[in-house]
Formats: sequence, structure tokens, C-alpha cells
Amino acid sequence: MKKIKLSVIPGDGVGKEIMPHAVRVMDTVAEIHGGLSFDKVTYPWSCEYYLEHGKMMPEDGLDQLKDSDAVFLGAVGNPQLVPDHVTLWELLIKIRREFEQTLNIRHAKQIQGIQSPITNPNNFDIIVVRENSEGEYSEIGGTMHKGPDEIAVQNAVFTRKASETAMRYAFELAKTRKNHVTSATKSNGIVYSMPFWDRVFNDVAKDYPEIETASNHIDALAAYFITRPSSFDVVVASNLFGDILTDISAAIMGSIGIAPSVNLNVNGKYPSMFEPVHGSAPDIYGKGIANPIGQIWTGKMLLDHFGEHEMADLLMKSIEAVIAEGIKTPDLGGSASTEEVADAIVAQLRR
Amino acid sequence: MKKIKLSVIPGDGVGKEIMPHAVRVMDTVAEIHGGLSFDKVTYPWSCEYYLEHGKMMPEDGLDQLKDSDAVFLGAVGNPQLVPDHVTLWELLIKIRREFEQTLNIRHAKQIQGIQSPITNPNNFDIIVVRENSEGEYSEIGGTMHKGPDEIAVQNAVFTRKASETAMRYAFELAKTRKNHVTSATKSNGIVYSMPFWDRVFNDVAKDYPEIETASNHIDALAAYFITRPSSFDVVVASNLFGDILTDISAAIMGSIGIAPSVNLNVNGKYPSMFEPVHGSAPDIYGKGIANPIGQIWTGKMLLDHFGEHEMADLLMKSIEAVIAEGIKTPDLGGSASTEEVADAIVAQLRR
Ligand SMILES: CC(C)[C@H](C(=O)O)[C@@H](O)C(=O)O
Ligand SMILES: CC(C)[C@H](C(=O)O)[C@@H](O)C(=O)O
Repeated sequence: MKKIKLSVIPGDGVGKEIMPHAVRVMDTVAEIHGGLSFDKVTYPWSCEYYLEHGKMMPEDGLDQLKDSDAVFLGAVGNPQLVPDHVTLWELLIKIRREFEQTLNIRHAKQIQGIQSPITNPNNFDIIVVRENSEGEYSEIGGTMHKGPDEIAVQNAVFTRKASETAMRYAFELAKTRKNHVTSATKSNGIVYSMPFWDRVFNDVAKDYPEIETASNHIDALAAYFITRPSSFDVVVASNLFGDILTDISAAIMGSIGIAPSVNLNVNGKYPSMFEPVHGSAPDIYGKGIANPIGQIWTGKMLLDHFGEHEMADLLMKSIEAVIAEGIKTPDLGGSASTEEVADAIVAQLRR
Repeated sequence: MKKIKLSVIPGDGVGKEIMPHAVRVMDTVAEIHGGLSFDKVTYPWSCEYYLEHGKMMPEDGLDQLKDSDAVFLGAVGNPQLVPDHVTLWELLIKIRREFEQTLNIRHAKQIQGIQSPITNPNNFDIIVVRENSEGEYSEIGGTMHKGPDEIAVQNAVFTRKASETAMRYAFELAKTRKNHVTSATKSNGIVYSMPFWDRVFNDVAKDYPEIETASNHIDALAAYFITRPSSFDVVVASNLFGDILTDISAAIMGSIGIAPSVNLNVNGKYPSMFEPVHGSAPDIYGKGIANPIGQIWTGKMLLDHFGEHEMADLLMKSIEAVIAEGIKTPDLGGSASTEEVADAIVAQLRR
């Protein structure tokens, strides 16, 4: 029996609603597989936990997670309760950083049965490889002076090591797909970090002569994701640019509620973290209508990560079949509940 | 006779093709007005100029422009000839900075007769007020170490003064429109500059209790521009975020070829610069098919800037009438040439 130790953090808002259903789906996959099981420990770390304990997780929180094989995260944050920078930097970003999850991988593709908000989706299929540990998200900076003279300085820090790691991953991935990598840059306006990024990209590209490359400024690239997304295969981007591009790629799928992601640890020292792209959506929390597909598709990425490609494919096909049948939550124009969608996926898996 | 002294810089690529036609349209407007004329001096500064002279403009270039009332710019840059950072920092960005054009204003709205690439444009009408002098586009930073240890640091610098200037402009503008201002932020991930930006925004908002406000993270906002652009009125953003959002807002109009912009000097010490959002598009240069509407709509903003609102409205109506008639360049799905579109606008103006 192959056991995968999962640390489950439902988090806030719809994360809490969706997680039990996603876990149920994963257990169904394991059952069908026969030789696979998920050993789960669930952690209540969230804004509510913060209000009670004054912190997002216990002092030894990371130690508790460290020995699991993967973290399965719902969504964290609820600015009504706790400021975003606390929630995120004490939990989400803390895990990403401390567990050296230096890459964030997000997949987006046109799904039959979901209406895209763009007129020409043309079966796009994009994976964005986002540098997840540095860049524009740095803790270096500060403010100075008070009143009208106040200034703020924020450093963006790019290392060749982390940039290269993201780029090499993108090139390797492109080999298994359409042999094309696009780099997101802005070297025409941002004159130190981005020319550096371009230079590293050109260096890495030399090792992959068989892969076609392009380099687009982030402003143009954001527009191309709307006008001609099907011309992209793998896109590699800095932390901020990857963040922006993946909200766009999720949007053009038709709902951010279906987009999956993994925060990948590539050195094998710590677990990776699997989380959907969507947030905790406090506005719809409690109504039972949150879309569970983002979390479930994230589970599909988890199966792939542990080499269970057959099960991953079965799960993806089941998700697609359920959507094609029209069993959809309101964000996709349907009227099904979170539970009904999960039920349908479970039933489909068993078919 | 009201004379407006115009420094005309056609620049590179399609800028050179479009500019004579845009100037012709402006002269027609002046003629119809009767009491208005444009005194024009044309400057050949461009990549070709660079190849000949080793610089993008003469040493005293800015002095030559300084006493004009406005700069009318086509498009600059052609990375095949001169690296982008040279072209831009020695001409476009240099003028923006030296002439203290601290704001960049870009208008986007749904135009009847143009197919939007999104399914729900719903008559969106957005003005983005972009801080144009600092932020992520700073000249402070550098690289260090060689080989695998190389790192790059890029500073983003935000002052209360420049942030406030952009925000106050946005609020004043909203008063003349739908009384709504959205701030683009990313304070959940970028922890010094963006919380500062939010703080300044909240302070300024207090002076405008009648204006409704919202604050959206740039990733979500980029997605909302695709899924529900009609829910925005005025959006205020940092230099980089404004850059990204305005390429998206141009894209959802149906072509970046029609989007106008002004780099605004608000202290009255230097001329403002009017330039379309599109670039020099070397790939279509020379074919006579570049869309002149971005440049001409930019001319409409110029008329407004000098208080010629009646003429500005006439010009905008003429542009819209010509598009509605189907006289469109290929980027809009038509088959008209640059010249034919400009001819049609001139004829429409005279009607
Ligand atoms: C060419 C480039 C430096 C410029 C910018 O980023 O400001 C352009 O994209 C724009 O929006 O005017
Ligand atoms: C919540 C926020 C800090 C986060 C990010 O920007 O990384 C989110 O937008 C994401 O993409 O996972």
C-alpha cells in the first residue's frame, strides 16, 4: 500500500466548505486505485484561529507539517477579520518560503462546457511556471519621513539561481508539451531586474536548442492572453508577473473557481503545497455554492506529482465529464451546489 | 487666432506612416474651427536618427521641445535596430521624466462597430490614471557577482507627493464621470510600497466623501477588466500596474491600434506629450495598413487639453462614424488603408 501523508489546511471561507468534498474525492480515487491511501492530518489554521490565538499557526506549525508528503491547502485570508499581509505572510507565504517551494505551477486550458469570457479561446492550453520565492515579493524595503514628504522603497531581488530554476523547469516541461517557452519580461521599463531576467533566459535557452522561445513584455503578454491565448504553451514569469498572468489565465477559463496550482519544492527537502488559485471568497461563504473544482483539479496535480498519472487522468476526465453534463456551480452558470458537483465527480470516478 | 505650438515626433515604424495623416486631421479640425491653428515643428528623432548620430536626440533636444505647447508623438523603438532600453530611456521616458509628465491618462471604451475580444464588454468606459514618474520604473538598482551567484536588485520608489498627485487627479476626474475610483494595489504580496500606496489612497479618499472607492489587487483587477470591465469608472495605478492595465483596456476595445494616451504635465512648467498606446509595430510597417485612430484619438485628447471641447467632441464623433460605416484597417477586421481611414475622418469632419 502506497501511503501519501497529507497535511490538510482548509483555511478560511470557501476553503472550509470545499475541502471536505475535495478530500472525499481524493479518497475515492485512492479506493479505486486499490494500492493507494491518503493519511490525513487536518489543521485548523485560519483567521479564526488567529483571532483566538493571536497567530496564524502555532510556533512549531512548520515542524508539524514538515514530515508530511504534501500540504493540501484550501484558501486563506479574510480581510474583514485579519489584515491580508498578516494572514498571508504568517501562513501562505511563510510556507512557500520556509518549505522552499520556489516554483508555482498553474495550468489553464479551455474546458468544453464552460463559457469563456473571451471570444476566441481556441482550445488554449497554458502552463505558467512562476518563480515563487523572491523577485518583487521581497521583505526588503521600508518607509521614511512623515507627512507630505513620506516615501516608500521596495526592493525586488532576483537571483540567477532562482530565476534559472524556474526557467529550466519551464524548458523541461515544454519538452513534454509543444516545445515552446515564452518569458514574461518588462526590460523596456524596468532596467535592472528585467534585463537581468532576459539575460538568464537567453543563457538557459542555449541549453535547449530544440525549444522555440519568445520574450514578451508583461503589458503586451497580458493582452495576448486575451486576444490569442492558444499561441502559448509554457510561460515562465517572475513572482509578480506570474501572479498577474495566472489570474488572467484562470479568468479566461471562465471561472477562477476551477484553476489549480502547486507550490513546488524541487530540492526534495520539504513537502510541496497544493492550493487552488481562488481565494477564500467571504462573500459567498456559507451558501454551499463554492466551486470545488479548483481544489479537486489541484488534487489531480497532486496525483501527477506522486507519479499516479493514470489516476490523475481518470480524475481530470471525471471533472470534464461532470462539467460537460452541465453539473456546475453558479460561477459557471449552473445551479448545482458544492456538494452536488463533488457527488457527481465521485459517481463519475466510479463509473 | 489661437495658436498651439506642436512639436511633432513621428518616431519609428508605423509612427512615421500614421503621423502625416493624423496631422492632416488636426489641421482639418483647426480649419473648421476657424480661430485655431497648429504651428508645427517636426523632429526626426528615431532609431534611424540614432544609427546616424549615436543618440536618440541632439544634446539640446529637450530645449528644442521645451517652449512648445505640446509634444505629439507617434511611436518609438525598433529592437531590431536599437535596444529598447536605449530608445525608450533616451527619448520616450526621458521626455516623460524631464518634462515632469507625472501622469499618464488612458481612456478605453467600447466602440460600436468594433468587435471586442471579450464576450461581455457591456459598454465599458474606463479611464486609467497612471503614475508616470516613479514607482517600479526606477533607475536605482544594479547587479552583483558573476556566474551562478549573480543577483540583481531593483528598487521601486514611491513618494507620497507623486502618488497623491495621481490619486487626486483620479478623484477630480471621477467627479466629472461616474463618481467611482478603483485603486490598483498588491499589498497582500508586496509589503512596503503597496501598503504605503493603500494608506495614501485612504487619506486622499477622505477628501472626497462623495466618491465611491474600491481597492483591488492587480491580479484580480486584471481579471475583472476581462470579466466585468463595465463596473469600472476611473482606475488609479502605479507606473507598472497602469502600464499593464492599459494594455488590457486597449485590448478589450478590440485593437491596441485605437487606444489614446497623454503624458500629462500638471505643474505647467513643461509641455505635455500626446502619444497613442500602440508601439511602432515594425512587422506591419511600410504596408500602409497601420491604424491611425490611436494617434487621432490622442489628438482628440489634445483638443480637450487645450479647452477645445467642442472640436474634441466633433473629432470623436467623426472617428466613431467612420468606424460604424465599416471603414476600418485590418486590425479591426476591415480592409481600408491608413490613408483611407484618415480620408474618411477628414470627410466626416467636414460634413
Ligand atoms: C515602451 C514602454 C517603456 C512603455 C511603458 O511601459 O511605459 C509603454 O509600454 C507604454 O505603456 O507607454
Ligand atoms: C494572496 C496572494 C499573496 C497570492 C500571491 O500573490 O501570491 C495569491 O494572489 C496567489 O496568486 O497565490
